[in-house]
Amino acid sequence: MTERILKLGIVGLGRAFTLMLPTFAHDGRVKLVGATDPIASARAQFEKDFGAPSYASMEALCANPAVEALYIASPHQFHAEHVRLAASFGKHVMVEKPMALTVDECSAMIEAARDAGVHLIVGHSHSFNTPIRRTRELIDSGRYGAVKMIHALNFTDFLYRPRRPEELDTAAGGGVIHSQATHQMDIVRLLGGGLVRSVRAHTGAWDASRPTEGAYSALLGFEGGAFASATYSGYGHYDSDELLGNIGEMGQAKNPADYGAARKRLQGAATSAEESALKAARNYGGRL
Amino acid sequence: MTERILKLGIVGLGRAFTLMLPTFAHDGRVKLVGATDPIASARAQFEKDFGAPSYASMEALCANPAVEALYIASPHQFHAEHVRLAASFGKHVMVEKPMALTVDECSAMIEAARDAGVHLIVGHSHSFNTPIRRTRELIDSGRYGAVKMIHALNFTDFLYRPRRPEELDTAAGGGVIHSQATHQMDIVRLLGGGLVRSVRAHTGAWDASRPTEGAYSALLGFEGGAFASATYSGYGHYDSDELLGNIGEMGQAKNPADYGAARKRLQGAATSAEESALKAARNYGGRL
Repeated sequence: MTERILKLGIVGLGRAFTLMLPTFAHDGRVKLVGATDPIASARAQFEKDFGAPSYASMEALCANPAVEALYIASPHQFHAEHVRLAASFGKHVMVEKPMALTVDECSAMIEAARDAGVHLIVGHSHSFNTPIRRTRELIDSGRYGAVKMIHALNFTDFLYRPRRPEELDTAAGGGVIHSQATHQMDIVRLLGGGLVRSVRAHTGAWDASRPTEGAYSALLGFEGGAFASATYSGYGHYDSDELLGNIGEMGQAKNPADYGAARKRLQGAATSAEESALKAARNYGGRL
Repeated sequence: MTERILKLGIVGLGRAFTLMLPTFAHDGRVKLVGATDPIASARAQFEKDFGAPSYASMEALCANPAVEALYIASPHQFHAEHVRLAASFGKHVMVEKPMALTVDECSAMIEAARDAGVHLIVGHSHSFNTPIRRTRELIDSGRYGAVKMIHALNFTDFLYRPRRPEELDTAAGGGVIHSQATHQMDIVRLLGGGLVRSVRAHTGAWDASRPTEGAYSALLGFEGGAFASATYSGYGHYDSDELLGNIGEMGQAKNPADYGAARKRLQGAATSAEESALKAARNYGGRL
């Protein structure tokens, strides 16, 4: 039996792609056949690693007939436009979280995919993590009864890792609501049983030098009657991975003494451009 | 200088009094001069321990002119009536939490105390705990800025400790909202800065054999802009004191292996009367 191989084009060789790369590289059912990114060094690295063309414009990538589907991992504020463009070229799409910045944008994306007859999926990654899937299996086993209450919390230094300017601007898709609530809600919904009937939340934007939401607490009521409390702080001087025995979300062992390293590194960046460079340096094609 | 000594009468020699007794006994400014309780063995123990009279009726205790103030630690559903009675005898009152079962009852109690010209205070105990007071001092120092967000959680086996029937009946003052939310809100309000502008909460009553609320999640918005997430589960097979290095709320070291002992002991009680006896046995004048 020959396995069907998905010929995938990459839109955005940044942080999300950097994290997804090992999965793509180790899955024989995926072949990377092209990429687009504004950073030339990342494009050059891609061509070298995959023997496939790269493009400075997304249109040029979409015009390549070898590309069947696109993994859209561009910055949040471009998701809606990039999905529309992909659909207009008849390409299937997996778009990174958050799907877009507004519900209206999301609706337009769904409509564009439907009109073009292409598949559109949102690549929430964490509900596919082994511990989360295993938890869902335990729930589905029925051994413990129905889910009644969920309590989710994360304390991280999210806001003090090197960021591009738009990541610190809510209107452009920045802050923990766009970046991290999406993950937490994805997991909580998978475990809690799907549709949510009510939400109340408080959000906090407490650092004028990084003027976007860095924290929130939300209370969700599920259609089935379960409820969930979900709290996130990206201002944290405390790393809640300690509650999981210092195992990070990728399964890696963490040394608590290393916590805050990003915050320290940030102090070396005098300008926003220097900070963006720090971030790019840790991504695909970067030099750190 | 002679210290003023408060001559205190005790209404209810149950669990709350059992927990307060060491404080009363070690504070030279307090003298216990009388008590009332329906259980004769507890009354006899009180007379023996304190050389002071005890009474089967609260009226008789109130009629004793030596009593200046009353510590009202009767079951929740009697607080309103007992405070009114104390005030009618011109006695000052410290009433245990919860103050009463409804806001209307609380208002009537305040009015009765005002009309009689007596002091009325609610004896929330945990906001006086050393770690909580120390936290408030750190906040007041200004070194860390204003409180922005509070995250409070407790997982206990509250619902599976031996209970009298009314403790498992919400209408009679039972369940974790009356018994435990009062403590959590007391602490959260002390640290968060007082008055709360908005509350949303979900509650759960999930064990038909113990038909009262055993869990909740609440989201509070403070007048000053801070917010708090507060979660409690009294169904817990997990003891959240583990997060505090297995130190209990009274400062005592806890052995995690002992957790669930009350739940096991309960299995030996076939009837509600046997369960009540189990509880009484662990209180003042009991035999455990």
